[in-house]
Formats: sequence, structure tokens, C-alpha cells
Amino acid sequence: MQGLLVIISGPSGSGKGTVVKRLSPENGYALSISVTTRAPREGEVHGRDYFFATEDEFKNLRAENALLEHAAYVGNFYGTPRKYVEEQIENGKIVVLEIDVHGALQVKEKFPAAVLIFLIPPSLPELSARLNNRGTEDAVTIEARLKRALEEVPLINRYNYLVVNDDIPDAVHKIDSIVTAERLKPARSAKIIQEFIDSQKEF
Amino acid sequence: MQGLLVIISGPSGSGKGTVVKRLSPENGYALSISVTTRAPREGEVHGRDYFFATEDEFKNLRAENALLEHAAYVGNFYGTPRKYVEEQIENGKIVVLEIDVHGALQVKEKFPAAVLIFLIPPSLPELSARLNNRGTEDAVTIEARLKRALEEVPLINRYNYLVVNDDIPDAVHKIDSIVTAERLKPARSAKIIQEFIDSQKEF
Repeated sequence: MQGLLVIISGPSGSGKGTVVKRLSPENGYALSISVTTRAPREGEVHGRDYFFATEDEFKNLRAENALLEHAAYVGNFYGTPRKYVEEQIENGKIVVLEIDVHGALQVKEKFPAAVLIFLIPPSLPELSARLNNRGTEDAVTIEARLKRALEEVPLINRYNYLVVNDDIPDAVHKIDSIVTAERLKPARSAKIIQEFIDSQKEF
Repeated sequence: MQGLLVIISGPSGSGKGTVVKRLSPENGYALSISVTTRAPREGEVHGRDYFFATEDEFKNLRAENALLEHAAYVGNFYGTPRKYVEEQIENGKIVVLEIDVHGALQVKEKFPAAVLIFLIPPSLPELSARLNNRGTEDAVTIEARLKRALEEVPLINRYNYLVVNDDIPDAVHKIDSIVTAERLKPARSAKIIQEFIDSQKEF
């Protein structure tokens, strides 16, 4: 089966983490693994949770254009290794990258075949309610997240698909449908077309 | 729900007729209805099976660019009325048009939002077996159909999707997935995006 890179973005509280967890490895999904300069935490395994790298190694990867995107976060670097993504795609995997808008658009530039999916909650009051129920953010932070969600709306047009996450199984079904459809595009079907042509030799 | 025009083409013996019959009206599918100058047969109802028209009426429709495509077949004219298709889409229907490559590309030109799906059998020997089993065509006709199937292969790249019809339920599932995905494109989601923006007024 044709591999694929799928990027999922959406405001904090859109439920993208939960949706991504439901994308089944049995259906070919595989999470992307980031390179990071952060020290491993207890139980974290190199090549499973992260690829751990020194700052020099990270800078070399960046200089060699070996990262599809990168960002700094509380003093550490994080990036998506192109080689790992390409190998997984080569093996027919649907590589899933959960990333913010900024990172998603970086990847799209370096890897135009990536399929960008934007996940939104059904409404801003619903988003507010979810963030309040989560109980991990204070009122000021929630206000800032709502504002940011609105600011990101115009960027939806740079994504390939928009999924409203009203119901988790429904959102997962929609992402499965997107993946099924994307794999049926003629640009990804060269092998099937060639096999059909070659089948004339079987007579 | 967002309406859509879906065009399905494929060689004779690809099983497109059977697949189209399985696209359920309960899921919003509606067959396109052709205009024809052919006389109604017993039991045929105007506006259900065909829109029956005189040759003058047909020529007027054609002159007014009111047909998305048209063709002549054994002395009669056939065409796809733009107005009917647009009304159905406006009502949220998935209008299905089963048509040959020539007609499909005519429609795509006049109606770029149309979603073009090409259906192929798994192989040429399988296509040959299906045509032989059907028992309605002689050996010369079957040979011509196989030749034409091969000739149409390069046109697959002008379609949006390629579905191999190896198994009817699987092909129907793939078409359902394509429709689900197409409806999630941002260009077709303007209403959802506006509703999300407007929901800030609900606070």
C-alpha cells in the first residue's frame, strides 16, 4: 500500500491528541518520531519515543536540510527527521505528525506531498468548555488559547482538509476516509497503472 | 451537507454500472438525469428516467451552454443539464454521472469542481473474462474493448482518483471515502468556518 505523510494541527482543546491516539497501527498508522536535544526522561527509549541528539548533531541535521521542520521549546531543539519519515512511507506506513500551524506549513514547503488536516472543535464556547473542564489552564491562558484559535482560522485555507471534531469516532472515520482517498490519487497509483498495462502480457 | 458532482468512468466491464447502483440514496447519492431527443420507451417517466426534448429544444440548450456535456448516439442526442445538476448540489446531493472519458473531460472543463473517478478492473485478463462471461459481446467486440481500455490508461492522470474494482463492496467503500474526503476540503467548508467564527458571539 502507498505510504503517506499526514499532518494534524488544531487549537489546544480541539482533541487532536485523543484523535491521533485512536488512529490504529493495524490500519498502517505510525507516529512520527522527533529528534530532540532534550535529555531522555526515565523510561524513554531512543528511536521509539525520540531520537536523542546533542546540540551539535542537531545543528548538523538542520544544516544538511535533514529536518522537515524544527523549533525551539524551553531551551531545547525539536525537529522532524526527513529520513525517518521517508523510510516509513517507503514501507507503506501512514506517518502521522501532530504539530502546530507554523511547523505544518514548514513541512508542506519541504514535503509538498504531505496531507494537511486541520481539526477544530464545533465552536468557541465548546472549546472554552473543554479547556475549563481540563482544569490544567487558568482563565487568562484559556482566553489566550481562544484568541489564538480565532487567529489561526484564515490559515485553514492552506490545509488540505478541515475536520470538525464533534465526536471522536466520527473524526477518526473522517481521517481514515481522507487517507483512503489520498492513496487513490493517480499521482500515487503509478505502480497500479503499470501493473494494469503489464497484465496484457498474461494473455 | 455539502453537495458534490461525482463522475465515474471506466472501461466496459470495469463494473461501474454495478458499483453506481450500490451508491445508496440514503447516503445522499442521486443519479444525474440526461436530456435526450430519443422517444420515451414504455414506462419511462420524464424527469425521472430522462428529460425528453425535441431536437430544437436540445439545440437551444446546447447553444445556451446549458449542457455540461453532450454526445450523439445512434441518431439521437444526449446531454447533461447543468441546471438539474446545480439544483441537486444546492440541495446537498452527491450527483453521480456515469459517463465515458470524452464526456467526463468535457464536464471537468465546464464544471471544475466535479470529482472524477476512474474505475478499472484488476487486470486485462480479468476484464476479458468478465466480458466473456457477460456473453453479450462477440470476440471481435471484446478484443476492441480491451484495446480501448489500454488506450484510455494515459487519461487516468486527468482524473482525480483511480479505483481498482476487485471487489464491489470495497470499490463502493472507496468511493464513499472519496466523497467524505472531498466534502472536507476547506474550499467546500466556507459555511463551517464562518459558523466557527460567528460562535464567538455566543459568549
